[in-house]
Order: sequence, then structure tokens, then C-alpha cells
Amino acid sequence: TIDRLMEPLHAADIADLLEQIESHERRTLIEIWHGGIDGEILSEIADTIREEVLGYLSPEQLTQAVRELESDDVVDLVEYLDEESQEAVLDTLSPLDRVAVEKALSWPEESAGRLMQVEVVRAPQHWTVGEMIDFLRAHPDELPDQFYHVILVDPRMKPVGNVTLGRMMSSRRYVKLWDIREETFRTIPASQDEGEVAYAFNQYHLISAPVVDDDGRLVGVITIDDAMIVLSEEHEEDILRLAGVGETTVADKVWPTTKRRLPWLAVNLATAILASLVISLFEEAIAGYVALAVLMPIVASMGGNAGTQTLTVAVRAIATKDLTGSNAWRVIRREVLVGLLNGIAFGLVMGVIGVLWFGGPMLGVVIAVAMVANLLVAGLAGTVVPLALEKAGVDPALASGTFVTTVTDVVGFFVFLGLGAAILL
Amino acid sequence: TIDRLMEPLHAADIADLLEQIESHERRTLIEIWHGGIDGEILSEIADTIREEVLGYLSPEQLTQAVRELESDDVVDLVEYLDEESQEAVLDTLSPLDRVAVEKALSWPEESAGRLMQVEVVRAPQHWTVGEMIDFLRAHPDELPDQFYHVILVDPRMKPVGNVTLGRMMSSRRYVKLWDIREETFRTIPASQDEGEVAYAFNQYHLISAPVVDDDGRLVGVITIDDAMIVLSEEHEEDILRLAGVGETTVADKVWPTTKRRLPWLAVNLATAILASLVISLFEEAIAGYVALAVLMPIVASMGGNAGTQTLTVAVRAIATKDLTGSNAWRVIRREVLVGLLNGIAFGLVMGVIGVLWFGGPMLGVVIAVAMVANLLVAGLAGTVVPLALEKAGVDPALASGTFVTTVTDVVGFFVFLGLGAAILL
Ligand SMILES: [Mg+2]
Ligand SMILES: [Mg+2]
Ligand SMILES: [Mg+2]
Ligand SMILES: [Mg+2]
Ligand SMILES: [Mg+2]
Ligand SMILES: [Mg+2]
Ligand SMILES: [Mg+2]
Ligand SMILES: [Mg+2]
Ligand SMILES: [Mg+2]
Ligand SMILES: [Mg+2]
Ligand SMILES: [Mg+2]
Ligand SMILES: [Mg+2]
Ligand SMILES: [Mg+2]
Repeated sequence: TIDRLMEPLHAADIADLLEQIESHERRTLIEIWHGGIDGEILSEIADTIREEVLGYLSPEQLTQAVRELESDDVVDLVEYLDEESQEAVLDTLSPLDRVAVEKALSWPEESAGRLMQVEVVRAPQHWTVGEMIDFLRAHPDELPDQFYHVILVDPRMKPVGNVTLGRMMSSRRYVKLWDIREETFRTIPASQDEGEVAYAFNQYHLISAPVVDDDGRLVGVITIDDAMIVLSEEHEEDILRLAGVGETTVADKVWPTTKRRLPWLAVNLATAILASLVISLFEEAIAGYVALAVLMPIVASMGGNAGTQTLTVAVRAIATKDLTGSNAWRVIRREVLVGLLNGIAFGLVMGVIGVLWFGGPMLGVVIAVAMVANLLVAGLAGTVVPLALEKAGVDPALASGTFVTTVTDVVGFFVFLGLGAAILL
Repeated sequence: TIDRLMEPLHAADIADLLEQIESHERRTLIEIWHGGIDGEILSEIADTIREEVLGYLSPEQLTQAVRELESDDVVDLVEYLDEESQEAVLDTLSPLDRVAVEKALSWPEESAGRLMQVEVVRAPQHWTVGEMIDFLRAHPDELPDQFYHVILVDPRMKPVGNVTLGRMMSSRRYVKLWDIREETFRTIPASQDEGEVAYAFNQYHLISAPVVDDDGRLVGVITIDDAMIVLSEEHEEDILRLAGVGETTVADKVWPTTKRRLPWLAVNLATAILASLVISLFEEAIAGYVALAVLMPIVASMGGNAGTQTLTVAVRAIATKDLTGSNAWRVIRREVLVGLLNGIAFGLVMGVIGVLWFGGPMLGVVIAVAMVANLLVAGLAGTVVPLALEKAGVDPALASGTFVTTVTDVVGFFVFLGLGAAILL
């Protein structure tokens, strides 16, 4: 009956199911399920439970599962395993496959070399359509599961062009592959960061692209389905980093999650204490005029919010290469002006509210001026901080939030309380 | 010389360049550049400057550009144009193409029907490889630019299977297409939301998928390159909504940007005033014990930060379908426990700091208890709010932040000041 339930599910959905249940349920499910974990399911399973699931498989099951996979999926499966589990998986491979996987593993983490598969379909650049079709029909078992292009190579194995299968199938046998190659053609260096690879696939609508080593020789191919996953992971990284969360999944347990959240909360505590130090400079003013304490979080909160809006737009635009050196000044100027305009709007509103709530027109002036100043600073910091971090080689998604909200807190409290102390007392 | 600079650039990069310069520079560049705007560049250009650029083209240039495009790219080009510009573009199409594009436009915005191209390669399910190849060779001009599968259809035009071109090319002429079809096969309803389409492509590693109407009949095909763009747009939407920014690009001008940021700042102002109302309940306590005013932002800030961490993880997991009804309780429990543990850790730290800074052990107890309470509430609200919004049919990325930080502000100020008033005075 468990077979009847699992049978119609896609490997990706089975992997998701396994991730969502508890560890002991997982073990039971895998034991009583006869269909068993195949290669496709293994390669879909999240890093966090991969070693556990591998531990439930017999050596025979493991061998059978791993042998179904293309080299890129084997790399993906083993790259973050501990050495013992990695060895167990690699031992199941044929010597030839093992060499290929180990070569891919020799490229840096998160590089194109780790993402590519070594199974490629290539042809000498002088071949005709007929020669290619005969070759493919003669070697059906050596072809990758999925391929979309034939890569044309020169005699030194440098890729020189791409021919789509569709173009090839609709051409006569005598046509030269070279004459029906794609107009635009890009190769990817094996050492390139995978995020850059994903960007290139998305920007140039690539379907598959040849990967070359430092000498420009063909070593593998990356396909768009794998690039799409990387693009999605890069987005996930940005969104989580912006929120001050390290790499996490909902499947994580309490203790590791706590430890991973803690450092960012600690940084936030430090900046919050800094803001409190600013407040403590004005203890006397607050004791004498309590309305200041009531209203001060509003100025800081509005600044923090405006700053977060700006920095998110900036971080995102840097990631998509829409914000670069060539338009940085224009964007900074725009954000400062936006901050000024919204500052004036909300300064007026809060000025009126302040006067109505606590009486005394000068309190209204104080909060209005502080609001304008803080939203203007928020626009400035929200663009300058991410740009500066990017320039310094730090991921702007990671640290911008802390810097910007520290600036808006400190400026917000200082201007509001400082003006209040100077004018109202 | 301008030709020499632009010539080697990919259409996507030219479009980016045009987006990054000012309007008058854009006009000049387009006028002096002889290569001119072709269809590919047009379809890459951002919505915000599309009508402007269309205005610079002569009717002949426009016709030539649009006729190069597949139907999905024409739809993409015109769907958000004003009626006049839309008419101008549609007028350039042949009557047959125009019918196809108008049919696609009749599907709802952001649906699969808008994303698909009507140019498909299909075959009766009983055909052989040889029949297919002969057909393709006989009609090379009617084929889409890029295609990766042949869709097998039954006599009523319902798609029943997919054959990859690779598999077809490596099979002998007498082999039946039906016998070499892909193992897994999915069709996409034309009315499906494009976000769901992108999810399916990413989850099931689809390269292209047939689109069907309400009767299950083949109406088009969606390819992964277009699904990848949607996935990226959905991420962008989430990240910007989480930050309280509407749809924006760095190319926007000051005034529209100001107006788009304003509503969220207004919502934030309302919640900040709510928090201030809580503070004003304790004016007397603050006047009598100013340390409360100095320390209160710390409690609120830590709660807001912890809440943002949790809600971001939850919103993201809901988007990737990793957080569903089946594991909601487990995730809520985990987040509450994580909040409790981090609350205890930072409660202890701040308790000690509070005592050292201001003297008086009871102040330490007050801030420690408030910290534990607020981080616990942050974990609870950070998961329950997004889940509840999702259930209510509201995008959790859109409104979670406001709700959660309002909760942590109110709880933080109330518990800290309330305890302070009760114990310290
Ligand atoms: Mg999954
Ligand atoms: Mg794969
Ligand atoms: Mg990887
Ligand atoms: Mg990366
Ligand atoms: Mg692959
Ligand atoms: Mg990144
Ligand atoms: Mg672009
Ligand atoms: Mg196209
Ligand atoms: Mg397109
Ligand atoms: Mg669209
Ligand atoms: Mg959408
Ligand atoms: Mg397309
Ligand atoms: Mg969404």
C-alpha cells in the first residue's frame, strides 16, 4: 500500500516528503517502501538529511542508485558529504566515472566545474549533418540522458560553435554543421563562480553551454535546468542574508537553528546598545519632557523602514547588475531626493500629530525636522552602504541591513533628542 | 564608431545599457546608431522605457523588428502597452500571427497562456522517427527558432507524450516515437498562474512543456528559458515585498518612486504610533526612572530582528512549498523554542549589562524577562502570521513584516515598561 502511494510521485516530491517528516518516520518509511530510493531521489534530497538517508541504504542499493546518475548529479550528491560517506559513494562508480567525478571535484566549490557534467556530445567542426546522425545512431548508449546541442570542436578540442538539435533535424544530410551553428556562442570557464554562470544563462537565454579549462579546452557542459537551480539558490541566499539568517531550511532542528540565528542577533544587540548610548546622552531632557521618550521610536522606526526599502532595492539591483558604477550617482541622487520628499511628507504629518497629542508647537517642529533628516540619511545610507560593501568585496546582502539601521537609529535618536533638548528645555 | 561599440554586444546587454542612461541620451543613441533596435532588443527592454523606445522607431523599423519574434515574445512586448502602442505593434503582424497573439492575450495576465508560444512541433502519436525527420526537413521554415521536444498528440489534439530530440536523433528511422517518449510527462493548463509554472519547471526539471486549454487540447508550449525569467521575477517580487517596496527598478524616476514607497511608510507610521501609544501608558514610570527609556528600544529591536528572521524563513519556505499544513506545527514549535533559547541567552546578557550600566538588580530582571517574552513571541508571530496570511489568500511576503514587527514592538514595550512600572517604582 505504501508502494501505491509513492509510485505516482515524482522523485522531487518524494524527496520533499522525506524532508518534511521526522527522522524516525523517515527511517521507517524507507525500510517498508519496496520501490526504494533511486538515484533521482537521492540527488533531490536536501544536504541536511542526505548522510542520514545514505546510511539507510545497503551497498547494493547505493551502487544501483548512483550508477543511474550523470556526473554532475554525482558531484552534487557527494560534494558536501563527510569523507567516509563520500568514499562509499565514489566506490560504487566504475573507474572511468570515478576519474571524471574526482576531476570535477578538483574545481573550487560553487564553480562552473562543479556544476558541469562531463558527458558531452561534440563533433569535429567539419562534420555534416549526416555524419553526426550516423554517429549518434551508432552510439546511443554513450549519450547523456538529455542534450540540446552538439558542440563543434577544433582539432585541439577547443569549442568553436553550437548546433541545436532542432536545426540539425530539419537540415539535409549533406549540410555542414558549421553552416547551421547558432549565431551567438558563449563558453564558460570552469573556474567561474556558479552565480555568474546562472546570471549568464538568465541574461543570454542559454539552454546549454560548453565549459572550458584554463587552456580553453572543452571539459564539460552546463545545462539550463542546473543553472536555474543555482539562480534560485542565489536568490534564497540573498533573501535570507538580508534578514540576517544564515543558510537554513525548515527541516533544521532547534539547536542548530538557534546557533545559526544567534550571531546576527548579537550584532543587532551591539547596534541597539549603541543607539541606547545615544539616548542616554539625553536622559535629562527625557526626564524633563517625557513626550520625547514616547515619540522617539517613531523617528527611528521610519528611518529604519525607509533605509530597508532603499537598501533592498540597491542590493537587488547590484545582484542583477542593474546598479553599476555607471549609474551609481544617479541612483544615489534619486534615493536621497525620494528620502527628502517622503521625509517632508511624513515630517508634516508627524509634526501635526505631535502638536495635537502633546500640545506645544515646538515639539511638532522638532519631530518634523528629525523626520526629514532621518529619511534623507536613510536614502543616502541605503544606497552608499551596499555599493561600498560591494566595492570592498563583501556581499552587500549580508551586512547592509545592520549598517543602515544602525545609521538610521543613531541619526534618528540624536537629531530628535538633540533638537528636543536644545529647543524644548 | 557607435556601431563598432554596439555591434559585439548581446541584445540583452544593449537593453540594459539603454535602461541605465537618461531619456535624452537614449533618444540620441537610438538615432545615431545604424544597427538599430531589432526584435530581440525590443523584447529585452524593461516595461518602464518600452513605450518611449517604441516611439523612436519608424513604422518600417517596428514592422521588421516585430516580425522576427516568436508569439510569446510579441505577447511579452505588447501586454502592458497602452492601447495605441499595442495597436501599432499588432498592425505589423501578418493576419495569422495576429490571431495567435490576440488569442494568447485573451488568457489572464500572468497566466501560462500569456507565457506560452503558439509555435509548437507536434506529431501524431503513431509516427516513426523517419516520418518525423522527413516532416521536419520538408518544413524547415515553419519551425520555431528553438525547440527541444516533439509533442505527441492524439487525434483530438490532446498531448499524450514528449520525445526529446536527442533520443530521436540517436534512434533508427523505423522506431516508433511512442516507444522512445519521455518517462515523465506533464501538461500545463493555460489558465495556471505563471508562478506555479515556474515552480513546476524548477521542481521537475522540465525543459519544455505543452500547454493545454480547458478541454485538454494542445494550444502552445512553454520553454524553460521563459520559466527561468518568471522564477527570477517571482523572487524579485518576494524580496521587494518583504522590504515594503512595490514593483520598482533602478531606472524609475524620483516622483513615481516616492509615491510607490509612501504607502508602506504610512502603514509603518501607523504601527509606530501604536507602539508610542503603548509607551505613553507608562509616562510616569519613565519620568521616574529614565533608564527605562534608554533601554526600551533594545527590547523592541531584538524582538523585531528575531521576528524578521523567522518570518523570512517562513515566507521563503511557503514560496518553495517546503512549509505546508503537514509540517506547520513542527515549524511553529521549533521557532518558539528557538525564540525561547535565544531569549534566555540575550536576556541573561542584557540583564547583566543593565545591572552594570544602571545599578539595581531588579532592572536586570525586568529587561531579562522582557527579552525572553519578546523573542518567544517573535518566534510565534514570525511563523503564525505568514501561515495565516497564506491561508487567507494574502501574499505572506506582502504583509507579514508589518504585522510581526507591530506585535514585537507592542509586546516588547508593554512587557518591559509594564514590568518596570510594577517592580521598580
Ligand atoms: Mg526539494
Ligand atoms: Mg539533474
Ligand atoms: Mg553544487
Ligand atoms: Mg554562491
Ligand atoms: Mg544536470
Ligand atoms: Mg549573492
Ligand atoms: Mg535586462
Ligand atoms: Mg525567442
Ligand atoms: Mg522571452
Ligand atoms: Mg509576462
Ligand atoms: Mg506573479
Ligand atoms: Mg520564448
Ligand atoms: Mg509570490
